[in-house]
Amino acid sequence: MDVTARIERALDEAVATAEVPGCPPRLAAAMRYAVFPRGARVRPRLCHAVAAACGEDHPGATEAAGAALELLHCASLVHDDLPCFDAAETRRGRPSVHKAFGEPLAVLAGDALIVLAFQTLARIKCAPERLAMLTLTVARSVGVPTGIVAGQAWECESQIDLVHYHRCKTGALFAAATVAGAASAGVDAEPWRIVGEKLGEAYQVADDIRDAASDEEEIGKPIGRDLALGRPSAVIELGLDGAIHRMHGLVHGAIDSMPPCRNGSELRSLMLSEAKRLVPKKLAQFAA
Amino acid sequence: MDVTARIERALDEAVATAEVPGCPPRLAAAMRYAVFPRGARVRPRLCHAVAAACGEDHPGATEAAGAALELLHCASLVHDDLPCFDAAETRRGRPSVHKAFGEPLAVLAGDALIVLAFQTLARIKCAPERLAMLTLTVARSVGVPTGIVAGQAWECESQIDLVHYHRCKTGALFAAATVAGAASAGVDAEPWRIVGEKLGEAYQVADDIRDAASDEEEIGKPIGRDLALGRPSAVIELGLDGAIHRMHGLVHGAIDSMPPCRNGSELRSLMLSEAKRLVPKKLAQFAA
Repeated sequence: MDVTARIERALDEAVATAEVPGCPPRLAAAMRYAVFPRGARVRPRLCHAVAAACGEDHPGATEAAGAALELLHCASLVHDDLPCFDAAETRRGRPSVHKAFGEPLAVLAGDALIVLAFQTLARIKCAPERLAMLTLTVARSVGVPTGIVAGQAWECESQIDLVHYHRCKTGALFAAATVAGAASAGVDAEPWRIVGEKLGEAYQVADDIRDAASDEEEIGKPIGRDLALGRPSAVIELGLDGAIHRMHGLVHGAIDSMPPCRNGSELRSLMLSEAKRLVPKKLAQFAA
Repeated sequence: MDVTARIERALDEAVATAEVPGCPPRLAAAMRYAVFPRGARVRPRLCHAVAAACGEDHPGATEAAGAALELLHCASLVHDDLPCFDAAETRRGRPSVHKAFGEPLAVLAGDALIVLAFQTLARIKCAPERLAMLTLTVARSVGVPTGIVAGQAWECESQIDLVHYHRCKTGALFAAATVAGAASAGVDAEPWRIVGEKLGEAYQVADDIRDAASDEEEIGKPIGRDLALGRPSAVIELGLDGAIHRMHGLVHGAIDSMPPCRNGSELRSLMLSEAKRLVPKKLAQFAA
């Protein structure tokens, strides 16, 4: 089974635990709506690629770790789209969860997806040390002091710490993807953190580029939100060319940071193809 | 150290992980505000009492389990108070989290507390089978299909399933308290579920009684909300006397359901004193 199919199956099995008698059906529907149809699945793909590079020996652990990261990512999108944050009416080209299901179910679906991520990990039948390591890695990436929730909370401070903001809001889940990928393969995982951090930063810069320079239909959500909301953006700071240059520097930095591993070629290819994919089509000629 | 001090210390240590440089300070403040000063700590006290009854052999596991349950309970209160649900302006006699910190930080503090609960569990240094069991028990009590999030989501359905609603919304976390208490002591834990379920139901009935018949200053939150919001209530269904009678029947049923254990007397006392505490003072003469 290829990686895409494994990722989708793991997510489907996780979400299906809500689709049983006794669970409020609209909550289950909101959770599935938040997770499917698939987005790019960047984080689980990265997790799988690192696990494969490290000589994956427990596919179930990799799949659970990848699914947990994606469930948390989807949860954060649902909550970030709420009226009290971005008030985003669309996501992936259709109504956001709170527009489709109402605000209460958007809050609850996000909560339930967070819990589901940890349930998915706890169900792994693997060496228990590996389980604790995976749980702590994933929790660190989403909670306090430096996970995605903390990142989002920087937007509520009067003085925003930009370094922490970006590192938490996007970098944390990417760092968790590389660390959890290595941990699920049972190898020394912390050296993989820097790879994920650089990729996360690249992804954040790419997101700023897309927000500033994409067509709305290409990315499936409203554009120009960062500018409209006065948010920090690499494009505002460095200009469009500077931001693209920075993004490529970060991706190559991530590749150069890879710890020695059995089979890194597939992972390197993934990082380079992502770097290409993330630049808006009309700027493709600038892609290095 | 007595149980109250152990519970408060475990919660303080958990919340303190947010109070470090690099974490948005208002998020950390909102989290502490949600957890302190203490409420009745009913769920962790129950967890500790069951662990003691079962011959507690790993105090750190009990403390982590109790803290995790209370963090999840506090998270659910923060989210339930949001404008899109109860729109509660006060809680425990002071402004609710969204009134004190704003809606975005209330959403994020709730999210962060959920994650912190699982982090707290993952940090237990105990036999890994026990860790997985505790994590699954706690996750089940808060997520889908039958945890407190699912319970809250029943309020978003056009047809509410009352049995599932009460069992999820209140019973799930009480059931987790008894099961996790037994699991943290390393004994066969599932037989303890029924004890927690009955206590949870008793607590829900008591909550309905308090909502209908308390003084606002006695319970520290607005009263009459169930009636105002057209919510299901045991008082509406059974009348005030009938509801009080039902609550006491449930508490005694919980005591009768206790599996054989080393030292059940303290646990029995706790259940009986809770039953007395939960009845509003002006109805105390009706308490059996």
